[in-house]
Amino acid sequence: MINFTMHSDPNDSPVSLYGKHLLCTQDLTDSELLFLLNTAKEMKDAQFNPIHKKLFENKTFLMFFYNPSIRTHLSFTAAATELGGHTEFFTPHMTRLKAIEEGGESIKDAAKVISRYIAGIGIRIAENQLSYYGEGHALQVEYARWLDIPLINLASDRFHPCQGLADIMTWAEWYGKNSKPNYQNLKGKNFLLTWAKGKLARGWCSVQEALLIASRFGMNITIARPDGYDLDPEVCEWTQQNCRAHNASYRIIDDPNAGYEGAHIVYSRHWVSPDAYENGIYQKQNEIEKASKLKNWIVTNQRMQRTDQAIYTHCMPVDRGNEVTDEVADSRQSVIYDVAENRLHVQKAILATILSKTFYML
Amino acid sequence: MINFTMHSDPNDSPVSLYGKHLLCTQDLTDSELLFLLNTAKEMKDAQFNPIHKKLFENKTFLMFFYNPSIRTHLSFTAAATELGGHTEFFTPHMTRLKAIEEGGESIKDAAKVISRYIAGIGIRIAENQLSYYGEGHALQVEYARWLDIPLINLASDRFHPCQGLADIMTWAEWYGKNSKPNYQNLKGKNFLLTWAKGKLARGWCSVQEALLIASRFGMNITIARPDGYDLDPEVCEWTQQNCRAHNASYRIIDDPNAGYEGAHIVYSRHWVSPDAYENGIYQKQNEIEKASKLKNWIVTNQRMQRTDQAIYTHCMPVDRGNEVTDEVADSRQSVIYDVAENRLHVQKAILATILSKTFYML
Amino acid sequence: MINFTMHSDPNDSPVSLYGKHLLCTQDLTDSELLFLLNTAKEMKDAQFNPIHKKLFENKTFLMFFYNPSIRTHLSFTAAATELGGHTEFFTPHMTRLKAIEEGGESIKDAAKVISRYIAGIGIRIAENQLSYYGEGHALQVEYARWLDIPLINLASDRFHPCQGLADIMTWAEWYGKNSKPNYQNLKGKNFLLTWAKGKLARGWCSVQEALLIASRFGMNITIARPDGYDLDPEVCEWTQQNCRAHNASYRIIDDPNAGYEGAHIVYSRHWVSPDAYENGIYQKQNEIEKASKLKNWIVTNQRMQRTDQAIYTHCMPVDRGNEVTDEVADSRQSVIYDVAENRLHVQKAILATILSKTFYML
Repeated sequence: MINFTMHSDPNDSPVSLYGKHLLCTQDLTDSELLFLLNTAKEMKDAQFNPIHKKLFENKTFLMFFYNPSIRTHLSFTAAATELGGHTEFFTPHMTRLKAIEEGGESIKDAAKVISRYIAGIGIRIAENQLSYYGEGHALQVEYARWLDIPLINLASDRFHPCQGLADIMTWAEWYGKNSKPNYQNLKGKNFLLTWAKGKLARGWCSVQEALLIASRFGMNITIARPDGYDLDPEVCEWTQQNCRAHNASYRIIDDPNAGYEGAHIVYSRHWVSPDAYENGIYQKQNEIEKASKLKNWIVTNQRMQRTDQAIYTHCMPVDRGNEVTDEVADSRQSVIYDVAENRLHVQKAILATILSKTFYML
Repeated sequence: MINFTMHSDPNDSPVSLYGKHLLCTQDLTDSELLFLLNTAKEMKDAQFNPIHKKLFENKTFLMFFYNPSIRTHLSFTAAATELGGHTEFFTPHMTRLKAIEEGGESIKDAAKVISRYIAGIGIRIAENQLSYYGEGHALQVEYARWLDIPLINLASDRFHPCQGLADIMTWAEWYGKNSKPNYQNLKGKNFLLTWAKGKLARGWCSVQEALLIASRFGMNITIARPDGYDLDPEVCEWTQQNCRAHNASYRIIDDPNAGYEGAHIVYSRHWVSPDAYENGIYQKQNEIEKASKLKNWIVTNQRMQRTDQAIYTHCMPVDRGNEVTDEVADSRQSVIYDVAENRLHVQKAILATILSKTFYML
Repeated sequence: MINFTMHSDPNDSPVSLYGKHLLCTQDLTDSELLFLLNTAKEMKDAQFNPIHKKLFENKTFLMFFYNPSIRTHLSFTAAATELGGHTEFFTPHMTRLKAIEEGGESIKDAAKVISRYIAGIGIRIAENQLSYYGEGHALQVEYARWLDIPLINLASDRFHPCQGLADIMTWAEWYGKNSKPNYQNLKGKNFLLTWAKGKLARGWCSVQEALLIASRFGMNITIARPDGYDLDPEVCEWTQQNCRAHNASYRIIDDPNAGYEGAHIVYSRHWVSPDAYENGIYQKQNEIEKASKLKNWIVTNQRMQRTDQAIYTHCMPVDRGNEVTDEVADSRQSVIYDVAENRLHVQKAILATILSKTFYML
């Protein structure tokens, strides 16, 4: 369980994340989590501080995107540039890095060679690139097995740690004072994760990471979703464990209305059903059609008014008019752009503390 | 009207362009234009000066190219690198940044998020990516509306300010002394913009920007084009206004020969007719066929000999054998590579004065 | 012939490579070769030395890849970043840089403009992008003709100098002491280049460069290949010349077994036959089928045991199970990852000594 008084200053901390893989926040200890988050806050407060530009100086981070991205790609690029280093963007069509069955290089060989060149690698792989749920995570685990440098998960089918860290940092800023995040204040807050209609057949990584991180900090968890839209049972089990450790509550409901009562944080997101993969193919069109019938699953102002002055949060891109009304997304309680911004600062903390030794030598 | 004695040293100038959008040179005041151009000259004279590498240090400029580019892409990349910063190259297929009708993110959301990460964004969008003339400019205006960082137009269907600035700088160098640009000397010079045959169905942005900037500096304008190849009436109207402010002449002729008499600057370029968009589709093949019949529209040595020792200028890529003969393009009066080079220096000035505060704090 | 005692310290050396093209190691003098290799060793020993980050500071290297790459792309990117500069990655679909017949820009114009922006350009073009053997090299020669900046061959259909330099550096490390390369010790060693089966229809550049560089340093050359798999006669002739200059032996055999006896370095690689191009098209499928019948051409542990404790070397990506067994590729005698790593250091030496003056001014 997180000891909120530890490591307010990361320099007091014996914690080191140097050289570790980052696949999911659940793999981090409480101290490691707070160390990363406190470092992110320092990065935000002293942006463009001359010391920062030494932290990843002359170093390269490879981003390997099987799926397209704008937020992750650009925020990591800006992060590395602010810290004096460089990100290189790869997609599979730029490389010969394919599954070995297609005559490409083995993951072992690719991983071993990449490890000789650069400071770390990030991989995004999800949904339509896969033939079953879990395959993306498995690929990352296989890379991690052979890499001699850290692997940062840039979103898989299961987890999205960079997103989870930005989420919790933003929520803690809101419930802190003068935008100083207060992680202790999150304990006991009511977190509503609600499924939403949508036309983009979204995967589970962002919402699952949100459940893990919210429960990790002691929030009461409500998952509202229509029948047939359960998430990964293992992730739900970990979330429950996190809740139990904090004496927090955990419930799953199938009513689009009931979860708002007393909520402090409302997170809506469309996600696909567990049947999204059939015969090894991502059934995007099926999922979109199925979801289009559930018209009542959207966050509206009326519903938000029943909360305890809740903030509206989302990992973006927002599917406006489906996941949330413009009125809510653009309201003063909406933290969507703040979450997006904190991706930058969290990722600077990742580059500085996981991929580089300089941070620990200052 | 431009007061040529102002701001020979930008440090004397109260002009600041920090944080402004750059969609077209016509939007800039005379002081702002000269401020940019003088800064570009400083950038060129003291290339790799240690101070320069502070001007965009640790900052990121996103280049979003709907249409391919080599000159703009590479020159902005080199510009940012010389100034200590970074450009990141995006094309639509790398991102989820599409029109909202396709289920993508709204321009507002994309613009707001991007604004949290980086120092500025450039967009190129033209011709075959559009369904009507003006749509590319409209998209840039929509981005500009929501961005909290500067938008730099990297060429739209209407305007190409980076090209216009490099054009005028190069012409002023030629009519200056020891390659020091003299913008005052351009006043009263005869500028011939002539349509040319060509097999690439070119848009209007470069030639329209050339008309605006040439007239802005007091040149007499001749547009020679076959019947049916008129440019944007609004741009022509602005050009005439610029001419009137300088008591300069403005004429449109349809003779491929007559414009050369007394010309000081000859700019040939193929461009499409106002009928290029039909039923929402860019009619590239139609345009190429139509243009292929107008065989007499090419710049030749014979024609150049009737000018007043005119320079030959072009925005490149040159369609040799169609827009101009090799003899002219490779002659001593050809400034095509100098124009290309000045793109680099002009763009360093843009990054330094529009996207960064450092310049104003030195 | 190489004088092995020259230039152990490059600062003692009057050799300068600044501004030269690098198309093939055979074009370099012995002094230039050792100068590059000694610089690479310095780069490796003092990685991230503060002086290094000045060597390519604020400079840009364009990598133009007609064919995909992971090793070359990433290692050059890391190299430039370590030295304070930047690589920009282009593929033809990002640019308008096409053959002039398609209405694109002439190579002359592209080369002249690029020369105004950056410190150097690298080009990779091979196999399926070409209509006959030698066309890729010819394109590079044409670029080199017009460029005012150095051209670095990133692999053509004929040569791959960066690979050859990394090969020889790694072999010299193995036959040196404490991983200090000893180039003199390579003289008289037995080098076996053996064809291997494979499903990827590989070109000749890496193996031809290996023949040239191995013979250049005085090794005895054995080429083992099935009938019908001869390499470029001109390259074979140069290799023989190199051998003669060192009184080294040169032979071609068609037995998959016989070459191992007494070998010190074993290099296996699949390559296509001289009939790979037919009617202007790269006959990939044909070549793969033809090669699939030659099942005995693979490096096995059994064969390696007949060598003189030979190392196994390969340019990667390795086609495991075809070119070599896992047992050999993963053995202690395998230097495949070391060769890959040395690409990085060799390329830093190239950027520092060919593309930048700073190195010579320190």
